[in-house]
Amino acid sequence: MIVHYHVALPAFSRGYHLITDQVMRSVEVWPDQGLLNVFIKHTSAAICINENADPTVRTDFEKIFNMVVPENLPFLDHDMEGPDDMPAHIKTAMIGTNVTIPIVNGRPELGTWQGIFLCEFRNRAGSRKLVLTIYS
Amino acid sequence: MIVHYHVALPAFSRGYHLITDQVMRSVEVWPDQGLLNVFIKHTSAAICINENADPTVRTDFEKIFNMVVPENLPFLDHDMEGPDDMPAHIKTAMIGTNVTIPIVNGRPELGTWQGIFLCEFRNRAGSRKLVLTIYS
Amino acid sequence: MIVHYHVALPAFSRGYHLITDQVMRSVEVWPDQGLLNVFIKHTSAAICINENADPTVRTDFEKIFNMVVPENLPFLDHDMEGPDDMPAHIKTAMIGTNVTIPIVNGRPELGTWQGIFLCEFRNRAGSRKLVLTIYS
Repeated sequence: MIVHYHVALPAFSRGYHLITDQVMRSVEVWPDQGLLNVFIKHTSAAICINENADPTVRTDFEKIFNMVVPENLPFLDHDMEGPDDMPAHIKTAMIGTNVTIPIVNGRPELGTWQGIFLCEFRNRAGSRKLVLTIYS
Repeated sequence: MIVHYHVALPAFSRGYHLITDQVMRSVEVWPDQGLLNVFIKHTSAAICINENADPTVRTDFEKIFNMVVPENLPFLDHDMEGPDDMPAHIKTAMIGTNVTIPIVNGRPELGTWQGIFLCEFRNRAGSRKLVLTIYS
Repeated sequence: MIVHYHVALPAFSRGYHLITDQVMRSVEVWPDQGLLNVFIKHTSAAICINENADPTVRTDFEKIFNMVVPENLPFLDHDMEGPDDMPAHIKTAMIGTNVTIPIVNGRPELGTWQGIFLCEFRNRAGSRKLVLTIYS
């Protein structure tokens, strides 16, 4: 059985944000056993799973990814949408647009320290759309 | 229900290429609701979802990933297959070998600006093999 | 049909390790057609698919990812768990926590040169937990 839930997240500031609670609340019926796919319908924001506890992990994410993919690289051609745009596309490709998580005993089988991150790479982004798919 | 489609892409030049149309054409029957997994059977080419409009996004991908993972790093041991080979393996690990996309109302539920990229990292690659899996 | 297998890997040294055999052995019944999801329940170790032959590919992985995400970056705040910890979180986000592989004719449809990697980013890690999900 396949069930989709369409979720419009509120606009988040640039950075890395825990959205595990929003995902949990958006699924109306959890099957006993299954899989959950979290898919983001954008090319300048990403979805991943990472540490759910210390907020400095998420602020260090921002600093490290900005170092790996800096803004204002002199050789870029796609710069009309601002200096944050092309790095946002690259970070999206590095981190990814979807995760697939096992559902065991009626809940996502995340590890103790795992949470779902929305990675917002734009300086001024609006609402982001997710599709959650439950298959069981 | 699970259906696989085996696709042999034509040889592409080194770079990032939109293959959404090839994927769409290769699936004979789209279910109403489901999921599509696109899997590449190689270790020096990757699959991701990114911007489908401006071609300079894709040429900037080439430049930025070459900066992040340069060729001819002096400390490498795996260099027998050419300077593009080991960076190709790393880029494949960063970007990934598969994406899973929701199917809603009989089509892949991509965002307006999303397309499927074949990321070809080798200078002289041949045909690349994909497996498309539809589950519904 | 959905079947989960919970796997506790032995502790691995820091580095990149082929675990295709452990995954193959852990699945008791392979369906004829389906999908296999390999999910790691941690935030400082990752799963990917890459070259299964030359061991220098895997030692070069260690060197290149350490160059891309160095330790002891002076601007980090999350440093209480050692210099390898925050880079481990970033590498996990770059490489990912799960892969989904087609199952065709009763076996995972990996390419000739593809193997499943456990990427261990911590200097002194314990056992790592995987969830394998077979859907058919």
